[in-house]
Amino acid sequence: MTTKFRCVVQYDGTAFAGWQRQPGRMTVQGAVESAIARVTGETISVVAAGRTDTGVHALGQVIHFACNSALPAATLQRAVNAILPVEVSITGLVEAADDFHARYSAMSREYRYVVDNGEVASPLLAKRVHHVPRPLQVDGMAAAAADLHGRHDFAAFGSPMEHTASGPDGDSVNWRGGTERTLLVAACRRVRRFVLFYFVADAFLRHMVRMLVGTLLRVGSGSLPVRAVAALLRGDRSFAAGPAAPAHGLYLVRVRY
Amino acid sequence: MTTKFRCVVQYDGTAFAGWQRQPGRMTVQGAVESAIARVTGETISVVAAGRTDTGVHALGQVIHFACNSALPAATLQRAVNAILPVEVSITGLVEAADDFHARYSAMSREYRYVVDNGEVASPLLAKRVHHVPRPLQVDGMAAAAADLHGRHDFAAFGSPMEHTASGPDGDSVNWRGGTERTLLVAACRRVRRFVLFYFVADAFLRHMVRMLVGTLLRVGSGSLPVRAVAALLRGDRSFAAGPAAPAHGLYLVRVRY
Repeated sequence: MTTKFRCVVQYDGTAFAGWQRQPGRMTVQGAVESAIARVTGETISVVAAGRTDTGVHALGQVIHFACNSALPAATLQRAVNAILPVEVSITGLVEAADDFHARYSAMSREYRYVVDNGEVASPLLAKRVHHVPRPLQVDGMAAAAADLHGRHDFAAFGSPMEHTASGPDGDSVNWRGGTERTLLVAACRRVRRFVLFYFVADAFLRHMVRMLVGTLLRVGSGSLPVRAVAALLRGDRSFAAGPAAPAHGLYLVRVRY
Repeated sequence: MTTKFRCVVQYDGTAFAGWQRQPGRMTVQGAVESAIARVTGETISVVAAGRTDTGVHALGQVIHFACNSALPAATLQRAVNAILPVEVSITGLVEAADDFHARYSAMSREYRYVVDNGEVASPLLAKRVHHVPRPLQVDGMAAAAADLHGRHDFAAFGSPMEHTASGPDGDSVNWRGGTERTLLVAACRRVRRFVLFYFVADAFLRHMVRMLVGTLLRVGSGSLPVRAVAALLRGDRSFAAGPAAPAHGLYLVRVRY
């Protein structure tokens, strides 16, 4: 009798070669699977809502896995956290419905990007935020971000995840191919010395958030006009998007089901 | 013609074997001195307000140094920051009076200690805060902290810094031997999932803040009565202080002159 569990996972992306398990590399998936395997004595395979890249952090990654363990959820969580390296924690673990799927059941993902716009970089935030010392016009960036709202072809800002290229086995309901996505929130604002970017979408293309932030930062420093973002969404190739902002300013904040 | 400079320095203590230069170890003093030396072409020796231990962070360490460089302060700061590793930054650099001394001119030092009292440790704060999952009675800790105010013999909570054991060369005005110190602020309070400790004193003994926090944490978890702190200050040996709380929750926040 297998039980399906659903977990919220936090991690410091600095320590890992991204989410996805890779032979010989320290990955978040690898760390989580081996910790659960040690507690349950079973070979475990976990599925995540989003496969974050090397250096990307998570405050609310969601995963699911199935196992035969009879341990209560709270005990399982405590035991797994005791084994996990300090750079990753399971902050919530509950039994899930049989048809719950961390990736395909997700209705939306929320990412945040943090730019430190102070003159001197803050050492205690070195791998937590992206330091941009040049002046940024946040009003222009916010106006350009507003143009991102709604359903668009985001081909200029990323590529489909490889793992969705052929669709999930036997499940096509929530599978998203192509490069069209719906952005529910795209905003930025200044908070003291920081500039924060907020993005919520049904799903994101690979590198999409970092490409959006990198493009908006060029708007903010005046090297790209505000209207370039809308033009890029229309497929106007007189502007180039990016470059992608670095991974270490990016946080997967929440996944909604 | 030498010029004396005064700097504010921030660092992530995780990366360093403490402040003080040691052969073959990566220390903050070593990193700062070699960065300034590379910019000025001179052998540089810097003096800090407080010699922090391995793993202790600083938001407002103060240093001074003298050099023959004719570079303006802003240029010198920018050049040094460009060379320093990301774990340390000079956040302010100004010319200082000839008689300014980072250690002996200091009137008070302010330290903060951060305890994460959440049930599950936060990976993104792993080397930034001390995780204490057990319940803490902050009222009792605050009452015990209040007993620390004023001038006391803190021998139970630390030892004099070795480097002050024989006093500074030719300067005894501000030299503090012995184990008496004056605590101007000693407080703690809960802020969301965190418990924050605030300490301001004319000077601190070696390991004193961590010993105070470790002792207060035992009060907070009920293994030491509130009155034990006042008793320890009176030299009552029916209680033992400590153990010292770990270095990675401690921040040197500010030095006043």
